[in-house]
Amino acid sequence: MNMRERFVNMTMLTDFYEITMANGYLRSGMADVIGYFDAFFRKVPDDGGFAIMAGLEQIIDYIENLHFTDEDIEYLRGKGIFAEEFLEYLRNFEFCCDIWAIEEGMAIFPNEPIIKVRGPIIQAQFIETALLLQFNHQSLVATKTNRIVRAANSRPVMEFGSRRAHGADAAINGARAAYIAGCSGTACTISDVVYGVPALGTMAHSWVQLFESEYDAFAAYAREYPQNCVLLVDTYDVLKSGVPNAIRVFNDVLAPMGYRPKGIRIDSGDITYLATKAREMLDDAGFPDCTICASNSLDEHLIREMLLSGAPLDSFGVGERLITASSAPTFGGVYKLAAIDRDGQHIPKIKISENVAKLTWPGNKEVWRLFDRDTGKAIADVVTLAGEVIDDTKPYEIFDAEFTWKRKVCENFRAQQLLKPIFVAGKRVYDCPPLSEIRARCTESVSTLWREVTRFENPHEYYVDYSQDLWDLRQRLISEIKKSTRS
Amino acid sequence: MNMRERFVNMTMLTDFYEITMANGYLRSGMADVIGYFDAFFRKVPDDGGFAIMAGLEQIIDYIENLHFTDEDIEYLRGKGIFAEEFLEYLRNFEFCCDIWAIEEGMAIFPNEPIIKVRGPIIQAQFIETALLLQFNHQSLVATKTNRIVRAANSRPVMEFGSRRAHGADAAINGARAAYIAGCSGTACTISDVVYGVPALGTMAHSWVQLFESEYDAFAAYAREYPQNCVLLVDTYDVLKSGVPNAIRVFNDVLAPMGYRPKGIRIDSGDITYLATKAREMLDDAGFPDCTICASNSLDEHLIREMLLSGAPLDSFGVGERLITASSAPTFGGVYKLAAIDRDGQHIPKIKISENVAKLTWPGNKEVWRLFDRDTGKAIADVVTLAGEVIDDTKPYEIFDAEFTWKRKVCENFRAQQLLKPIFVAGKRVYDCPPLSEIRARCTESVSTLWREVTRFENPHEYYVDYSQDLWDLRQRLISEIKKSTRS
Repeated sequence: MNMRERFVNMTMLTDFYEITMANGYLRSGMADVIGYFDAFFRKVPDDGGFAIMAGLEQIIDYIENLHFTDEDIEYLRGKGIFAEEFLEYLRNFEFCCDIWAIEEGMAIFPNEPIIKVRGPIIQAQFIETALLLQFNHQSLVATKTNRIVRAANSRPVMEFGSRRAHGADAAINGARAAYIAGCSGTACTISDVVYGVPALGTMAHSWVQLFESEYDAFAAYAREYPQNCVLLVDTYDVLKSGVPNAIRVFNDVLAPMGYRPKGIRIDSGDITYLATKAREMLDDAGFPDCTICASNSLDEHLIREMLLSGAPLDSFGVGERLITASSAPTFGGVYKLAAIDRDGQHIPKIKISENVAKLTWPGNKEVWRLFDRDTGKAIADVVTLAGEVIDDTKPYEIFDAEFTWKRKVCENFRAQQLLKPIFVAGKRVYDCPPLSEIRARCTESVSTLWREVTRFENPHEYYVDYSQDLWDLRQRLISEIKKSTRS
Repeated sequence: MNMRERFVNMTMLTDFYEITMANGYLRSGMADVIGYFDAFFRKVPDDGGFAIMAGLEQIIDYIENLHFTDEDIEYLRGKGIFAEEFLEYLRNFEFCCDIWAIEEGMAIFPNEPIIKVRGPIIQAQFIETALLLQFNHQSLVATKTNRIVRAANSRPVMEFGSRRAHGADAAINGARAAYIAGCSGTACTISDVVYGVPALGTMAHSWVQLFESEYDAFAAYAREYPQNCVLLVDTYDVLKSGVPNAIRVFNDVLAPMGYRPKGIRIDSGDITYLATKAREMLDDAGFPDCTICASNSLDEHLIREMLLSGAPLDSFGVGERLITASSAPTFGGVYKLAAIDRDGQHIPKIKISENVAKLTWPGNKEVWRLFDRDTGKAIADVVTLAGEVIDDTKPYEIFDAEFTWKRKVCENFRAQQLLKPIFVAGKRVYDCPPLSEIRARCTESVSTLWREVTRFENPHEYYVDYSQDLWDLRQRLISEIKKSTRS
C-alpha cells in the first residue's frame, strides 16, 4: 500500500511565500515564464564524505496528488490578498513541469544538482517546500544510518527510534530511509505495513516487571515465541539475574520444545563489560549460538568503540540518534533558480550573496559520474551544461572550481549521467523501484567510493567539478552583477 | 478542521514489541491485569531549567481513532506468530483505559509524571509508542521555541522551518508546538489550514532573480501587496543594491498608493552590521517605521548576541534550528510501569537499572505544584501517592530525594494538582482548548518561574520533590529487589 492512501491531501504543505509569489507571478504577466530550479546541498552532515539520496518516492507522491480543494481555495480567499484569477488558476491546477532526479540510494555530493525542475515558475516555485522537506528528511536519515551501519561492520542494525522521531512521518519515512541505507529492519510496525520494511520486536522492561519474577517473564515469552526468543536481560541485574534466568529458561522451556535461543538484549550499563561476561556465561551454558544485541542511545561512534574494545556483540538496536540524526539533525538541501526561458530566450541566473558559499551555479545542468574502468571506483562527479557530452572514449580533463590550477586528466573511465527523467510535461515517466532494489543500489553505490571518502573523520573530499563552459558562464554572470551593483 | 480528517489510520504506528507483548499478555492469562504507566522525562534539552508540555491533542486524536482494520489484522496474521484469539481481540478492540495528563502549555520538569495511563496492560502498553512520539516531538519543539522567543525579548519570532523538518508531521505539528510556545506565526500554510496557526510569508530570492532587476522585482511585489510590503534585500548586495532599491520602491510605488512599507528582511551576511547600516538608510529616507527582520540559521544564542550588540532588529524568522531543535534534537520522554492491580491487589513496581538515573518512581502518583501566595511564583513540584492530600492551609515540608537532609518548610502557599483527567474508562472527558488558550497558558506558566530557573546557562534546578510516603515506598522496593538478586 502506498502512502497516498494514508495521507489525504498535503498540497498546502508549502511555505506561505510560495503562494504569495505564485500569485505575484501570475499578476505580473509572468505565467508563461519557464524556470529551472536545482535542489542541492552544500555540506554533508557530520562532516562526512558523502550523503545518500532518499525521499524521491514521497516527492513523486506529493506531486501526483497536487490539487487544491474548495476548502484550500476558501482559506486562501479568506486572506484577502489573492486575486480571483489566481484562485481560479489553483482550482484548475494541472502540474506540467519536467523533473529529473538522482535516484534514491545513490551516493550524492555537495554542490551538484540532485533534483532539477523545469516548468512555469508558478508551479516550479510552488513545489519547493514539500520537495525539500522530503529530500532533506530522508537523505538526512539515510546518510546517518549508513554511517551507523558501516560502523557495525556487517552486523545487523535495527531501527528503534519511533518514540523519539519528530512525528508520525519522521517515524514512518525515517524507517524507510534507514532501511534504504542498510538497516536490516525496524521496530516501526506501520512502516512494514506501508513500505514492507521488515518490522521486528520482542519485549520491553515492563514485560519483565509485569510477571511475578524475571524467570516467569522469560518463561512466558519463550513459550509464546520459541522460534524467536530474544530476552531483555537488564531489568534487574544483567549478570546476577538476567543472564542466569535466561539460561534457565533456555534449558527449562526452549530445549524441551526443541528450540535454540535466538539471543539476549542489553539496554543499559557498561555494555562492553556486560556483553563479555554474558558471552562467557552463555558459552559455558552451551549456548554459543545465542546472540547478544546491544541498544541504549547508540550511534556510529559508540558502536565502533564497543567493537574495537572487543565487545562480543552480534547486532544493534539504534534509536534516537539514528531517527533524528541527532549529531547533525538538518540536511541543508536548498532549491535555487538556475535559469529562465522568457520570450524564447534562455537566460541563466545566479544568486550572489554576502556568504561566498551561497553563490549558486547557473544554467540548465547535467551531472555525470566518472568511474575508473579498472577498479570500478568513482573518480569524480562533473556538472556540465545540458547538451554537453562527456565522451568517455577520450581523455577528459577535470579541474577544481576554486583552485583552477588543480587539474587531472581522466583516462580509461566510464561516464554515467545521474539525473534521470521523473516527470515529463507533468506526467510521471519513472517507476519507483521496490525498496529492496533501492537498498541494493545504496550498497552498490557506496561500494564504488574510495575508502578515503567513506571514513568518518576528515574524509577525502570527493571531486565535484564543473565543465569549462559552465565555469565560464558563472564567471561571466558574477562579473555582470558586480558591474551593475557598482554602478 | 482536525488532523483526524487528514490522517486515515495511524493505529499501527507502534513498536512491534508492543504487539508481541500484547499477544503475550493475553496468552499468559493476564488480560485482566491493570497496569499504571507514567510518561516522564529525565533531562531538559539544552541543559535548560524547564520544558513545555505539548502534543496532548494529537495523543487524544490517536487514541480516539484506535482501530485495527482488516488489512492490519491480515498483516499481523501473516507474521505467523500471533494467536487467533489475540487477532480477534484486536478486531473488537475497544479502548477502556483512564488517562491523566498535565495540560499543554504548562512548564514541566524532569522525573515527574506528565501523563499517567491506567488500564488493562494489553491496551496501556500498546499506546506507548504513539503517545511518546507525540509528547516527545511537540514538547521538544515547544521547549526549544520558548528559549528562542525569550531570547527575542518580546520581538515577534516566525517559524520558518518546514523545509528542514523531519517530514510532514514535523512541519505541521512542529509549527503548532512553536505557536504554543510563543512564536507569532509560521510559514507552514497547512498548519494554518489545520490548526489556525497564523501563516505568513512574502518572497524568496528567486522572486528577485526572476525579474529583469531587483527594482522591478520589488516594484511588482509592492504593487501586488502594498499592505504587507516586506522586501528581501540580500539577493545581490544589501547596502549597495537591496536597501536603496527598497527605498526607491517605497517612494515610487507605495507612497502614491498611500501605503507605508512594512519591512525589509536580511537573510545572509553580517546581519548586525547590515541591519545597523540599513536602519540608518531607512531612517534617513523617512522610513523609521519600516521594520527589519533577520533570518538565516538563527537560534536563541545568535538572536541574543545580535540584540546585545545593538542590532536594530524588529523580528526574526527562525528555521531549521527551531523546527529540529538542532542543538538537542531529542526529548527523552519514557513510559514506565509504576504499578499493577492483580486479583484485587495493588502492587507498586520499580525498574532498577545499572544506570542509577534510570531508577523509576513506583506507585499510582499525583503531581502538585506549590505557588507562593505573595509572589505567585512556583516554589516546587511535589509528587505524592494518589490519595495523599497536600493541605495548603498548613506548613508542608519538602525534601530532596537524594540528599534528604536538604529540607524546606513551605508556608503561605497554594497547591495545585497538575494531572487532569483526559480519558475515563476509555471515554474522553477533556475538551482540547483552542490553541490561543494553550499559548496563553504557556506564557502564564513560564511567568510563574523564577528568573533563576529560566536562564539559558546553568539554570537553578527547580525542586521536584517526593512525598515521604512515596520515598519510603521506593526505598522498600529497592531493598526487596536487591535482596532477591543477591540470593
